[in-house]
Amino acid sequence: MQRYFVPHTNWKENEVIIDGDDAHHIVRVMRFQVGDNIIANHPEGKASICEIVHIEDRTVQAVIKEWLDGTVELPVEVTIAQGLPKGDKFDLVLQKGTELGANQFIPYQAERSIVKWDKKKADKKLQRYSKIVKEASEQSHRNQIPVIKPVMNLTELIKESDYYDVKIFPYEEEAKTSTYNSFGNVVQGLSSGKRILVCIGPEGGFSENEVGKLRDNGFLPVRLGPRILRTETASLYVLSSISYHLEELGC
Amino acid sequence: MQRYFVPHTNWKENEVIIDGDDAHHIVRVMRFQVGDNIIANHPEGKASICEIVHIEDRTVQAVIKEWLDGTVELPVEVTIAQGLPKGDKFDLVLQKGTELGANQFIPYQAERSIVKWDKKKADKKLQRYSKIVKEASEQSHRNQIPVIKPVMNLTELIKESDYYDVKIFPYEEEAKTSTYNSFGNVVQGLSSGKRILVCIGPEGGFSENEVGKLRDNGFLPVRLGPRILRTETASLYVLSSISYHLEELGC
Repeated sequence: MQRYFVPHTNWKENEVIIDGDDAHHIVRVMRFQVGDNIIANHPEGKASICEIVHIEDRTVQAVIKEWLDGTVELPVEVTIAQGLPKGDKFDLVLQKGTELGANQFIPYQAERSIVKWDKKKADKKLQRYSKIVKEASEQSHRNQIPVIKPVMNLTELIKESDYYDVKIFPYEEEAKTSTYNSFGNVVQGLSSGKRILVCIGPEGGFSENEVGKLRDNGFLPVRLGPRILRTETASLYVLSSISYHLEELGC
Repeated sequence: MQRYFVPHTNWKENEVIIDGDDAHHIVRVMRFQVGDNIIANHPEGKASICEIVHIEDRTVQAVIKEWLDGTVELPVEVTIAQGLPKGDKFDLVLQKGTELGANQFIPYQAERSIVKWDKKKADKKLQRYSKIVKEASEQSHRNQIPVIKPVMNLTELIKESDYYDVKIFPYEEEAKTSTYNSFGNVVQGLSSGKRILVCIGPEGGFSENEVGKLRDNGFLPVRLGPRILRTETASLYVLSSISYHLEELGC
């Protein structure tokens, strides 16, 4: 069933109002009619099956028929702090990361990021990014849309990291030592509700300064298999592995 | 160190000859000079550190200094049979799948694939695809380049599947039942050297006919977490999880 995230203000007592792009999608793309059912997601994470009762130009009215139990959210909250990559790789991280259950994304202005975002540039991009995570959440039937935080530098990211239980950073050099931290041990130690922050370097990797500061502030270097992954692949590996371990392995 | 895959014919007694695009890359892109070291990968999976001794127009000659021990290949052989997706999604599967350690790719002409490949179209694409997996292998420091098999239909794929120890297909409907097959159990059962075939449906998923035939021929339906993944994300989840379990978790 098609799923739409409906903002707070559009929930009335026992009905929802869908407008904007989603109304267009319902009417013009899906060609739904009065009597058809959709799933409406509440910003607090609940979802309900709703029946369309009225369609007007750019507004769809639907009544709540049944609240749905269950959630498909990861049992832990994973935040991906992605060192700003080149081209449209951040789009890929947002889309695939959302499918794989990320809770939050932080665009991280790393020392070796070739792209530079000022706050103005970031604000402009945010609209497009919000659309990507909303659509990916709907497509993957999630109950929540991941949050995209403002762009942060290292100092801001380290301050932000106080709110997390576990902090890691994939570090290529780690893969070359025989005493690398086991990512498996980190994931094994996660219990339900924990918050994990994953900081991923850009194309050129982390600088020595960054590695030092991350270590000093409680970030553990981990290896993600022995092969060298591209920056945009690392987050997908982390999220897939966490889902696999906590949702499919049960060991 | 920069890595290049060198074909059989270019290995002489104690030296390698690098030509074509790779020579261009060495001379024009990396601007290496006589005395610089590179890694040359032999098609049989061995790799050696080589010192550049001579650079001529479009040909680079290097002597073997040291054979490298160790491999970064997955301990099991994973083949991804990808239901032909739309647009350039197959490129993404090839590139990311190679980074994540896939051994082989099969373009699978699924019933619901919107794209149709005839043999001629496939041959044309093969050249570009070969370049993608070669470059991704070099970038991720792999010892082997994954093989891209010819396009197959269901009958051909089932015949091919005889050569595998384990056969699975991610199946969305499985995620909705309470008795789904655990992907974790499948991975847990893999021992070194086993061959696993993963068949992934295209955007529209598998038809009932396909599901029936896959089941009848020993393919196990699995769930890849409770969220619905796009077709191109499924293979990345499978490969990441297998790497995580066998290379990082050790449980």
